[in-house]
Parts: sequence; C-alpha cells; structure tokens
Amino acid sequence: MSQEPAVSAETASAKARPRRTKRTETSTSSQLHQQPWQTLKNPYKPIEIIYEEQIEQIHNASMRILEEVGMDILDDDARALMAKCGAKVTAGSNRVYFDRHLIMDYIASVPELFTLHARNPAHNLQIGKNFTNFGTVASAPNSSSMDGGRRAGNQADYQNFLRLMQSLNILHFTGGYPVEPVDIHASVRHLDCLADCVTLTDKVFHAYSLGRQRNRDGIEIARIARGISDEQLDQEPSLFSIINSSSPLRLDQPMLQGIMEMSARNQVIMLTPFTLAGAMAPVTLAGAIAQQNAEALTGIAFTQMVRRGSPAVYGGFTSNVDMKSGAPAFGTPEYVMAAQISGQLARHYKIPFRSSNVCASNTVDAQAAYESTMALWGAIMGGTNFLMHGAGWLEGGLCASFEKLIVDADLLQMMAVYLQGVTVDDATLALEAVKDVGPGGHYFGTAHTMARYKDAFYAPFVSDWRNFETWQEAGSPTTYEHAHKLYKQILQNYEPPPLDAAIREELDDFVARRKREGGVATDF
Amino acid sequence: MSQEPAVSAETASAKARPRRTKRTETSTSSQLHQQPWQTLKNPYKPIEIIYEEQIEQIHNASMRILEEVGMDILDDDARALMAKCGAKVTAGSNRVYFDRHLIMDYIASVPELFTLHARNPAHNLQIGKNFTNFGTVASAPNSSSMDGGRRAGNQADYQNFLRLMQSLNILHFTGGYPVEPVDIHASVRHLDCLADCVTLTDKVFHAYSLGRQRNRDGIEIARIARGISDEQLDQEPSLFSIINSSSPLRLDQPMLQGIMEMSARNQVIMLTPFTLAGAMAPVTLAGAIAQQNAEALTGIAFTQMVRRGSPAVYGGFTSNVDMKSGAPAFGTPEYVMAAQISGQLARHYKIPFRSSNVCASNTVDAQAAYESTMALWGAIMGGTNFLMHGAGWLEGGLCASFEKLIVDADLLQMMAVYLQGVTVDDATLALEAVKDVGPGGHYFGTAHTMARYKDAFYAPFVSDWRNFETWQEAGSPTTYEHAHKLYKQILQNYEPPPLDAAIREELDDFVARRKREGGVATDF
Repeated sequence: MSQEPAVSAETASAKARPRRTKRTETSTSSQLHQQPWQTLKNPYKPIEIIYEEQIEQIHNASMRILEEVGMDILDDDARALMAKCGAKVTAGSNRVYFDRHLIMDYIASVPELFTLHARNPAHNLQIGKNFTNFGTVASAPNSSSMDGGRRAGNQADYQNFLRLMQSLNILHFTGGYPVEPVDIHASVRHLDCLADCVTLTDKVFHAYSLGRQRNRDGIEIARIARGISDEQLDQEPSLFSIINSSSPLRLDQPMLQGIMEMSARNQVIMLTPFTLAGAMAPVTLAGAIAQQNAEALTGIAFTQMVRRGSPAVYGGFTSNVDMKSGAPAFGTPEYVMAAQISGQLARHYKIPFRSSNVCASNTVDAQAAYESTMALWGAIMGGTNFLMHGAGWLEGGLCASFEKLIVDADLLQMMAVYLQGVTVDDATLALEAVKDVGPGGHYFGTAHTMARYKDAFYAPFVSDWRNFETWQEAGSPTTYEHAHKLYKQILQNYEPPPLDAAIREELDDFVARRKREGGVATDF
Repeated sequence: MSQEPAVSAETASAKARPRRTKRTETSTSSQLHQQPWQTLKNPYKPIEIIYEEQIEQIHNASMRILEEVGMDILDDDARALMAKCGAKVTAGSNRVYFDRHLIMDYIASVPELFTLHARNPAHNLQIGKNFTNFGTVASAPNSSSMDGGRRAGNQADYQNFLRLMQSLNILHFTGGYPVEPVDIHASVRHLDCLADCVTLTDKVFHAYSLGRQRNRDGIEIARIARGISDEQLDQEPSLFSIINSSSPLRLDQPMLQGIMEMSARNQVIMLTPFTLAGAMAPVTLAGAIAQQNAEALTGIAFTQMVRRGSPAVYGGFTSNVDMKSGAPAFGTPEYVMAAQISGQLARHYKIPFRSSNVCASNTVDAQAAYESTMALWGAIMGGTNFLMHGAGWLEGGLCASFEKLIVDADLLQMMAVYLQGVTVDDATLALEAVKDVGPGGHYFGTAHTMARYKDAFYAPFVSDWRNFETWQEAGSPTTYEHAHKLYKQILQNYEPPPLDAAIREELDDFVARRKREGGVATDF
C-alpha cells in the first residue's frame, strides 16, 4: 500500500477529473437544450406531515369556524345565492354561516380531474389526480434583470415574460400577468394583456377576477382563441382565475363576481386563501391551516352553488411572517409543512391542489435558490397538481425576475426528471456491462455507456460544472450571470406560435371594439 | 367595489408590509440565535422511488455481481479471513467471490441502532432507526472564504472549521478533516488533527483508514478523550471511519486494514462506494446502485467477519457525471433518486444509512444552494441516519467553504424544524382566537399570538427578509456576505469546551510520544 495519506476517495476522483480548456457545449450556446413539452405525473406517495386523525381535527375546526364564526360575503348576489342554497344569511349583514353538511354536499361535486384547454390542443393540461403542471410567476408589481435593474412593471417586460414562458417547454401555463404592466391604462389593460397571451403564446392562461366585465372579456378571448362556440366553451374549461379570500374569513365582491362569472361558464376557479400565520391567520400552523381550509371550502362550495360540477382547485398558500417585522416569509420549513398538509386536505376532499414556488429574497442569490427549492419540495411532495409562481418569483412576489425565471425553469426540469423515476430492468441493471468492465476498470467508452451517455442524465441550463480553475479563468460567473445570458438568448430566438388568421382577426376586432367601448370604466 | 385593478391579494399584502428603517435584531448581531443541541428523529415515511419488487431486482443483481464477477480484495490478511469465513478465494489472485447466503448471513448481525459516544456524553449520537445526525464537510483539499479566497488546506483553517462545528448546535459531529491541513507533515498529521478534535470540540469525530497504525492511534485518542478503559471502549463505539471502495468492485489495503482495526475494537465503519454512474459504475442508475450495493454489502459483511455485531453503516454516494466532461455532478435529480433508493436498500437490510449534502458549484451562489437543498431532500426524505458533508462542501468536495458552512447550517436547522412537525390540538387549532378576531380582523397583538410569537417560527441565520428598499440601502448584501459576517462572529465568540486536566495531559503525552516515535513512517 502507499503510505502517502490522501484525501478520501470521495474527493480523490473529483480531483482527477479532466481539466477542459473550453466548455464545448454550454447552456449559453445558441441552441437551447431543453426537455420536450411533457404531461407530468407524480409517481410517488406524497409526504404526509400529519395523520388522518389530525386531518379530521383540522377539518372539524374548519367546520366549526364556518358554523360558529361564519364568513363575510361582500356581495349581495352571492349572499342571495348562498341563502337559496341553504346557508344562514341574515338580512342587513354580510355575515354568512355554513352548516358542515351543506359545505360537504357542495364540494362533493367538484371534479377530481379535468382538462384545462389551451388554444393549442397539444398544450392542454390535466388537472387533478397525480398530474402536475408548472406555471410562471404572476402579479408582480415590479420586474428586474441584471442589466436593467428593478423597475415598475411595464408592457415590454410583460410581453418578454410571455415569450420566455412560450419558449420554455417546462412551463405549462401563464399564471396571471407575470408582471403588472402599469403603463397600460387599467380600463383596457386586461384586453391588451389577454390578447398578448393568445398571440405570443399558445398555452393556458389566466384572467383576473376584477369585476364581472373583465371576466366576461377574458372568457370571450379564450373562446375566440380556441375558435369554438360558446356551447363548446361551456363544456370545456379553457381559462382559469385565482380567487384569493380576503383573510381572515372574507370573500370580497370582485372575487365573488369572478366565481359567478367563471363557474357559470364552467371555467376554472382556484380558491387560494392568503393565510399568513401570525398576521391574517392564527400564529399556530394548525390554526392557520384550519382557517385556510374554512375559507377555501367556502369558495369552492360557492363554485358548485353557481354550477354543479364546474372545475375548482384547492389552493394552499399558508406561510409564516417574520415576527420581528411582519414581513411575509416564504420557502421556510413552516411553509413546506403547510403546503404538504394542504395537499393532504385537498386529497382528503378529492379536490385538485394548487401550490407555489416562492421565496423572499431580493436577488438571485443562495437564499432565493434554497427558499425556492424548499417551496418546490413542499409543492411536489405535497402532491400539487398546479404550481403557481413556478418560475420568476422574487421578493415575496413583489418582483418578477428574468434571471430567476431561468433558474426556476432549470429547477422545474430537474423536478420533472425526478418525477420520471428510475427504470429497473435487465438493461439498466447492466450486469453484462459490470462483467465486461470488471473490478478496477472504468465505464467510459463501454458499449453500455456509449449507447446511452447523451441522454443518460439531465443537462442543466445554468449549473456550472467546470472545475474551479477553468471557471475562474472564465471570470467566475455565478448562476445569476449564466441565467442572464440565457434569458437574453431565448428572447432573441423567440418565434411566436402559429395563429390562424381568422382567429387573429376576430381577436383584434374584439379587442378594438371593447377598447372603443372604453374597456372597463375606472374612476381615474 | 373598487374599479381599480390591483395586483392579486397574494402580493397585495406583501406590498403593504411595513417598511423598517433598521433590522433591529439580525442574525449578524453579536449574540448567535441558534437552536439548542437536539437529537433528531424523522417522523415521516421516507420517499420510495422504486417498489419493493424492484429493490429485490437490484438486490439480486448485486448478489449476481458478487457471485459471478467478484471483488478484488487487495490485502492478504483480509482475503485469508474471508476464505476462513466461506468466501471463494483463489491462491495467487485478489479476486474473491461471495455467495449470496454468505453475505446475507454476515450482514444480519449489523446492529440496526447503536450509540456513537462523544467525549461529552450530552453529545452522544443515536445511529439507526429514524434518528438522523448532521456532520461537517470532510476531506476537502482546499478551503475558502470571501476575504481570503481559495487556498490549499492548512492547520489554521482546519482548526477554525472545528471551532465552527463545536459552536453550531445543529452540527452533531466532525465528518473527517473538514479541510486537509497539508502544512502538517503526513507522518504526524493524524496525531495533531485528532488531538484538535478532542481539545477544540467535544463531539463525535472520525479517523481516516490510512494504514493500521493511524487507526490504532485514532482509537487510542478516542479512548483517552473519554477517559475510559480499553474494555469499555470495546463495548462503546466512540470513533468512526469512512471506508470508500475503489469502485468498481475493489477494496484496497488501507481500507481493509481500517475495517480490521476498527471493527475488531467495535468501532464504527461506514462503507461508502464511490459509484459515479458513467465513470466507475454503469451509466444507468439501477446498474450503478446495484454495483454500489454489491460493494457496500461486501465491506459491511467483512466488518462482521472481523467481529460479529460491530457497528456498520450503509453509505450511498451514487451520483452521475457530466457526460460532456466527466466531471462529477452533485445534487442532481439523479443524485436525489440514487440517495433515496439507497435509503430503501439500507432499510431493506436493516442497516443504518449514511448520505451527504453535496454540490458541484464553485462559489456560494444559487447553484450551490439548489444543489445542496436537493441533496438534503434526497438524504432526509431518503431516511438518512447520518449526514456526511452536511455543512461547508463546495466544488464537488474539492473545497471547504466557511460561508457555505453557515448557509448549510441554516438549511440543516430548517430541516430540523421540518422534522419537528406540526402540533394539532385545541391550543394550536386556535378556534377561540379565530372567534375573537373574526372576519376582517388581524392576529397581530392578539393574546394567542402574543403568547407564542417569539418562538413561533424558525428565525434563519442568513435569510434576508428586509424589503427591497431597505435591503438596497444596506448595500444589497447577498447570502454569501451574510454568511461571511456570521462565521467571523462565531469564531470571535468561540470558547473551547471544558476538558479534564488529566485527560488533557494524557492526550498531550500520547501525542508527544507518538511524535517522538516518528508518527507513521512515510517515504517523503
């Protein structure tokens, strides 16, 4: 034996790795290597943070909240419908009480699985069971890039986010406006923005619930985009809207109107209470989740009061706040547990589950990455069917970052590989290869390796696997810088998806007409 | 309703978060807020990547490898013992074949759970079942810090890593030399380094298997540190050694001698094949894991041939290489699946499971964080009992980073919170608080919140939750910079743990004597 002490074999091999002068094929080359569009299914058993008995305890607490505390329902039509359906409504009050049997009866008709149609049928989504789908960041008031810094949301950035979403196969849908383009007047913003969703992308998109007319316009744009009749649209969910309850225990008018407009047309409502433990919900996770559950089930039951069998999704967004400052925290261990418990609840009720990829960091640093990766594990192993804010979210949602979108897309592709699992059969067990190579040999260049090496492993977008010296010679680039180059390159190579000329004309006419009508009146 | 479009409630609340002028209590204040020392148990069911039937297929492939291909056993004494125990050894050859019944018979006596003793009994570790323990990076040839850059391993850095390990309660053990101090001559390096483990820390430590004498010295130092007799040491595992097979399918002399020295004294062997798929193992994960399993079980069976019932641990380290360059990749989806399948195998054999927190990044950027967080989820939800390289690993193990150690310690604390789970009872369900606050109220300042807010949520070391403007005014610090400040501060506040004067004297005498004897002879 050699008497020379050495570092352990765990690093010895790494030391010996060949030094390359150039990375011959990098993620920043002109051709983007990415996974194909894929319909993802999660083959693993979701992580269960609490026992079924504890799920029942949370359920019971939620039901007592609805029976004993009630919800404030801030719309006359909604209260009238709830009263008609059996909820306890008192004239002159917003407060509505719900019996547990009423809630359970209504939520029973939510479909466990449904198709959400895109204008390109190849991009239709399956929502429910063990399917999972990934979307962009949504609703950020600011956007940022390494060269342009942080700025107020604007149309140019908004459109570029759509182009990135369309270009990246791992992104299944636009989760709302990735950034709010405040340079478009609010009266017509939804018209321009949703028209962009149709012309710049061919994937599923979202309409905000901000008054009945905007939902109606969104539904019409979704119908035009698909070139179908009203009747067909009513059979085929083609648009979704996120409904946030105004926690604690309130549903406000625009949200209730959104449910009434969307569910009446069989379109998708995703009911997501914004229950930050310690602020709008109890400081204890169990209590915050019980409140989330009460709010979510009320809204979901209401979708069924509007139209039995219309698609609805259970959204979990419970997180904690920084108790020193009140700032929301994301991607924390508490967030992960809340997401996974929310998944348990959604499955308990047989309702599809929405979660998110979130972080609180102000830049694309280690914090952004570990908080997002934590949130992703919470979502994926919580059994999420629909991942909002999947790519691009920074600053607790206050900023959509172009570079973060690329890093997240890389993470989502890694998750997709993880969900593909491992094949165990004679070919992969490779006994013949092991016999050929034998003790002390190596597998580079064997037939078994050569036949598989090109696609054997995931090749990431931004991970820099060069050795230190080569990396240093290249200027010591961080992930942030790699992501910056890549997003620019994707935008450069972007091509809009084909769109039927007649549809394009109908869409333009509709938007022009609605703009002539003033869009939706505002008081400014 | 307001006609003014707004960003969704999901971001509206974040927008409204109060702006602080100063972070009043930060992780970089002079007092370190950290979790207490804790014995961690994982209450969740580990993720199962493959079915039990597929575990059997991998098991069967491993057994066929050992029966039909065999292992090269590069030590005469080891082969002689194996032959005596029933393995098929041919005179004049290193090749040894093992019957599956022989392997299964020997591994059956490995304890499912054992105590690994520290010189401070409060820091004893439980290894096995659903206990989990976190250690430092080990065996890096280089170290780095933001101010000092990257440099060859040296004693000053080595000692500082030990001080950080001792100071951070979330770190349960030293996983080897965090960085290799090459400024100490190899003949006496193990003496100085292990003496430092005893004087600078009071936690569990590791001895390298680099020739019989070094293991003997390590065992004697562990005995002296605990102030116990040889007989007691033989009953109480107090030292561990990582054994890496020289994949494919070889165990070299220093490693075999390490097993013979350590197992004979009932000390802990952690058998970890370094099976990089596509390099030292088949390019297919199933094949790489089958080979890992063959190598691990051979080494573990050998521990039992040396001494029945001696503690051994199943190490999983299978990862993939970058097929473009041959560079090892870490924290990839393939790595995560391999870790979790390794955990399935270890549980199948009822042997404690060792995994790692690894990454390939060259700096403390987003890549380092997402690769490490991925690896951690692989380990934790793979049911690891012993996490090597838990804090500080960069560059595929070629560098121990002071800042990465802090970021990782933060991640490990988050994992500890995650493993604590959620309490569901009347107090946490908080129905009374919900009633008190009612719809539209808020929970800041309620009695339920006030009684709990200080410890309600994990307060991270380095996550910066300030809003963008405040963060920008503070100079836009990244996680890397926060970690840099914190490690300096911890070192400044470090105090060595108490050590009995008689033990100190015996230790010093032993080290002095062994140095006078020349330590371990080298040829340089």
